[in-house]
Formats: sequence, C-alpha cells, structure tokens
Amino acid sequence: MPDRVFNFSPGPAVLPLSVLERAQRELVCLPGYGMSVMEMSHRSECFLEILASTKRLLQELLAIPDNYHVIFLQGGSRLQFSMVPLNLMRGQPQPPDYILTGSWSKMALDEANREGQVNIAWDGKATNYDRLPAGGDLKLNPSASYVYSCSNETIQGVQFQSEPQTGTAPLVCDCSSDFLHRPLPIAKYGLIYACAQKNAGPAGVTAVIIRDDLVARSRDDLHGYLSYKNHVKEDSLFNTPPTFAIYMMKLVLEWLKGEIGGLAKMHECNKAKAKLIYDVIDASGGFYRGHAQPAVRSLMNVTFRLPSEDLEKRFVKEGETRRLDGLKGHRSVGGIRASIYNAMPVEGVEQLAKFMTEFRKGH
Amino acid sequence: MPDRVFNFSPGPAVLPLSVLERAQRELVCLPGYGMSVMEMSHRSECFLEILASTKRLLQELLAIPDNYHVIFLQGGSRLQFSMVPLNLMRGQPQPPDYILTGSWSKMALDEANREGQVNIAWDGKATNYDRLPAGGDLKLNPSASYVYSCSNETIQGVQFQSEPQTGTAPLVCDCSSDFLHRPLPIAKYGLIYACAQKNAGPAGVTAVIIRDDLVARSRDDLHGYLSYKNHVKEDSLFNTPPTFAIYMMKLVLEWLKGEIGGLAKMHECNKAKAKLIYDVIDASGGFYRGHAQPAVRSLMNVTFRLPSEDLEKRFVKEGETRRLDGLKGHRSVGGIRASIYNAMPVEGVEQLAKFMTEFRKGH
Repeated sequence: MPDRVFNFSPGPAVLPLSVLERAQRELVCLPGYGMSVMEMSHRSECFLEILASTKRLLQELLAIPDNYHVIFLQGGSRLQFSMVPLNLMRGQPQPPDYILTGSWSKMALDEANREGQVNIAWDGKATNYDRLPAGGDLKLNPSASYVYSCSNETIQGVQFQSEPQTGTAPLVCDCSSDFLHRPLPIAKYGLIYACAQKNAGPAGVTAVIIRDDLVARSRDDLHGYLSYKNHVKEDSLFNTPPTFAIYMMKLVLEWLKGEIGGLAKMHECNKAKAKLIYDVIDASGGFYRGHAQPAVRSLMNVTFRLPSEDLEKRFVKEGETRRLDGLKGHRSVGGIRASIYNAMPVEGVEQLAKFMTEFRKGH
Repeated sequence: MPDRVFNFSPGPAVLPLSVLERAQRELVCLPGYGMSVMEMSHRSECFLEILASTKRLLQELLAIPDNYHVIFLQGGSRLQFSMVPLNLMRGQPQPPDYILTGSWSKMALDEANREGQVNIAWDGKATNYDRLPAGGDLKLNPSASYVYSCSNETIQGVQFQSEPQTGTAPLVCDCSSDFLHRPLPIAKYGLIYACAQKNAGPAGVTAVIIRDDLVARSRDDLHGYLSYKNHVKEDSLFNTPPTFAIYMMKLVLEWLKGEIGGLAKMHECNKAKAKLIYDVIDASGGFYRGHAQPAVRSLMNVTFRLPSEDLEKRFVKEGETRRLDGLKGHRSVGGIRASIYNAMPVEGVEQLAKFMTEFRKGH
C-alpha cells in the first residue's frame, strides 16, 4: 500500500493496516457465510458469535471483573453525555461531581446540567486546560451520585496518569480517546465508555462497561434507547446494533491481542512513540512549545505551538507533502496536534519527529 | 462470487453486489486520499463531500422540496420512536394520533406514551395486523400535533399503498423498511425517517427528512443529541456521524440512480419481483396462505404460512440447501417471511418462486 499516508487525525483515526486488509478480503463475502457482515441479520448465529467474541476480547484484554457488563451502543460520546446523568442522576439523593479538564468534560457537564444540580469538583479553565488536578485539588462530595472525568482530553492533549481518587462515589469516565492504550484497573471505575473512532474501530459504535449496581439505577420511565438497563438486559440487541462497526472493533481487538500482544505491550509502544515527539519538543529550545504541562502530557494527542501562526500553517502544509496528514490543531488551542493512537505505526511517528527537527532547522 | 447466497433477511439485509465490490476496492485506501473512509476525519474535505453527495442524491432521487432538511443520525428506529415525541409533542397543545398497523408502530407508541396522552387513530390488533385502515376507519383529530404511521410493517408484511389522509396535521412516517422502494410524494409528509439496514445501506445510520416548521418545535431543554434542531443546525455534524455507514448509503444511492435508473424504475422492478411470489401463493390452492390481506400486501416483506409448522421448518431447511437464506418468519406471525428489498436480484426471487412451486408439489 505505497499510497497510504500517515494519518494523525484526532478521530475518526488511523486503523491497523492488517485489520483493514482483512476487512477488505471479507467484505463481499464472509468465508463460509455467503454474504457480507453488513448484510447479516443481527440475530443470525454468525453475527451473535461476532458480538460475543467482541465482548469476550474486551473482557480479556481489560481483565473486566464479572460484576461488570459490556454493551455496544450508538450515538457516540454525545449521547453518553446525556445517558450518564439520565441513568445515574435521576432519583439519586446527591448530585454528581464533575471534573472539568477540557472541551469534552465541559460538554458532558452541559448535558448533566439539564438533569439538575451538579457540583464542579475542579475546573482547569484558568490556565486553558493545560494541567490536571492533583489529589488535594479535587473538591469531592463523598456521597456524590458519581464522579465524572475524562481520562484524556483530545483537544488539549492532557491525560490522567492514574485514576482520580473518588472514595466510595462511583467513578464515571469518558475514555474515548485513550481506551485500550494501556491496561486499566476496571475495578476502580463504576462506568467507562468509549466511542470507537480513536482507538477501537470506526465511528458509529460506543463501548460501555458498567458495574452491576449502577445498571440498577436506570429508571423504568426512561425512553427505551436511553436506558442502560434495557441494553444490558438485551445484551446489546435491544435494537439492531451497528453490526459492521462491531465487527471492525472485533478485528481491532484481535490485532491488539494477537499482533501487539496485549495492552501492557501496547502501553510500552505508546510511551515510546510519544517520547519521540516530546523529546523533539523539549530539545527545540522553545521553537516548539507543548500546550500540556509535562507531567500530564497525553500519550495519544501531542499538542504544541510554533513561534507564529504563519509557521504553523507552513508546518501543516509541508507535512502533507511528506504524507504526514491531519496535523492541524483544534481552533480552541491552535497550533499543531499529532494524534498518535494505538494504530499509528512507529514509522509514522519517526517520520514526524524527523520532519519536526528538519523544519525547526529550516526556520 | 459463486459462493454468495440469496439473502432474504428482513434486515440488516442484502446489499447490491456492485456496491459491496466498490466498497471492497476502496476499503484500505480511497483512491487519491491515502486512507480508508473509516479513518477520515468527519471534518475533512473528502468526508464533507461524501456527506454532501449522500444528501444531494437523496434530495434528487426523492425530489425533496427545499423546505425539508435531510439529516443522518444514529440509534436506529428505536431512537426515532423517542425523538419524534420528544421533539414534536412537547409543548404542543394537542396530542398526536398514532395509527397501529403492526409491531413497529406499536413500539413507537410505547415511547410516545412516556411523553403524555396519545390518541389511537386505528388499531389492527383484532385481526393480528393483517390489514390497514381504509380512509373512513381513521379516527383523526384535525388539530393533532402529528399523525404517526409506519409505511410498511416488516413483521406482518402489510404496506400502505398510498399515504393516509391526515388533513393539516403533519404526517410522521417510519419508512425504514420500504424507504426508496418507490418515488414518494414528500410534500405529503412532515417527517420521514428510515434506518438504513433494509433498503439504504448497513445498520448504524438513520436518514431523517424533516419539514422546516417541525424543526422549530425542538425545545432548547432537550438533551443535545435528542434534538432535531441541533442536528439540522450542524448539518449532521453535531457529533461524529457514522462516517462509513453514510459512505455506504452514498454508494447505494448511486446504484439506485445509475444502475437502476431512479425510483420509478425501482418500483416497477419491485412490483414484478413481489408478483412472482404472490402469484405462487395464490396459485397454490391454499398450500401457501399469505398473512396480509391481498389489497395491502407488502412489496418488501412477503409473509405466508404453510399447512403445518413441521412443513414450515422443512421449507426453511430445504431453502438453505438451495442457497435461499433467511426465510424464517418472525415468531409473532410465524411461518415464512421472504424479504425482497431493492437489492434482492430478480434471479433470487425467481429461484424462490421455483422452489416454492416444487416444494408444494413434493408435499
């Protein structure tokens, strides 16, 4: 595939080449089934096995304890911003705590506000979300209905290095942009969700991992699709699930397990890839300025500025001529964003690092 | 592709072979873009063009007037069952009218009931939904906030032959299972929705066509993803849309326009295909008994019984040995269901008709 670029898009994002090649081979006809996965009834034996395998692989890779359910939904993080408060706030005696670390957690807060009072446990606004709270910074209510956080803010490029300590209140986490980038201590969470289009598959499917006792909170007066309880009860078949997107997630999980060798190895690889770029930033004598404070730098989204907007534009343009694609940063932070998810090959990161060094010397 | 079966699944369902073959060619690398459609940012120029083309093709094929918006959502019909009342009932002076013609319209009613009082304009329950209301049967409120109907009931195999007359009340229609099977007089509708996995693409995307004045009903206190107004305002980019499913829909629409020659031709073809099977039923001397009354037989889902459940099981099994797949009926009606959507080749229907004739003679 000599014409493939290195795709640094923040999402939808790069997928493993071997996964795409397998999907391509099987696209018209899944061997032995006489039809495409896209054409299969979601209640066919074959698709039920795809669904069960996807779930099993997630359970295995993340060592998900038995008291957690895994479901696959539509609507992306946006719908989760609403489903979380609809299911976990309604009827609870205490409001939830929200930790605001960047654009995504703020959007989640906007939806939670529709359901009632919300406590802000921390807000990084004053420094344009370039840092994360230390343990003592969080103003948590020990009886909060839940504590909401976002593990990795794609736009700002800040990432929790470990779980915030929430005591007995269940930790709810939007892991969309760093899901599966390392092993996760699932037992520390009450609910985790991740839309697939960063690290786990194509856009159109969202994995939700939810602890048993939290499923019980879904009230019967919720609209059908919006109730976690319904999806858990029907094992993701409450309605027709996004069958092809789930199949793609299965292929990505098989790649993680088989070709990569699991999440610990993936984590080593991600640390090494991120180091290549952060090292260039740190050695640039201020030519490249990282947005995130060094202690909370994201392994997934490297955000940085250049000395001028003009140079940033030239950086993006010159990058494209070297087949380095999708480097433009989000308008709220500006500058450059290199998203280096699980599926970004080391070679792509090496070429970016090389380009960054040469570009600095040339300007 | 000698190993492809004829797939009579009610949905997800058969897709045009040429569409699958094109998707296969382009899967790893969309020519000129260096990446898979699945890997593209939804805000990239290339994807924006895919989205715009999909919309344009729908507008063209269905001759959608300028005062209608076209948006692409997730969550399937199930989420539409809720979004319709959430957006169109709340704050309206009068309740809506629901026409109950089978399983799907009944499920839609269950969600509408959560939002307040609903009038039942007609209910086909007494005869197990084998017929549809004639004009005079409908108990409509001329000031209803809307009138809800389902154009084709997949499970029962009954299909409206023309739009119910709703006067000034806006007609809302779940067209999921017969969308694009014929030209539609869009101006008779206030809102149409269709999940793609029957006639328009893979599971995971739902097209919504909504009249301007109805968009204005969405209240600002609705959760973000649940508001039609938000999706219209952001032109389907309120959040990351299901990019690959939209691309697949575009290929299906191109096939409808280019290879088929538009919806009038598709309709002729669908009538001819359905006639092949209904003729065998009618000539079988009662061996095959159609579920739907002849006047409202569906062109998409042909439902029928055999003299015994044992024969029905043998029919399904023998069909499979002839590569006729997915013929088992839904448990609520029993018997056989042959779904013969747009993409089912005439050859598949001919083989089914031949098999039906031979099976009858053999038993």
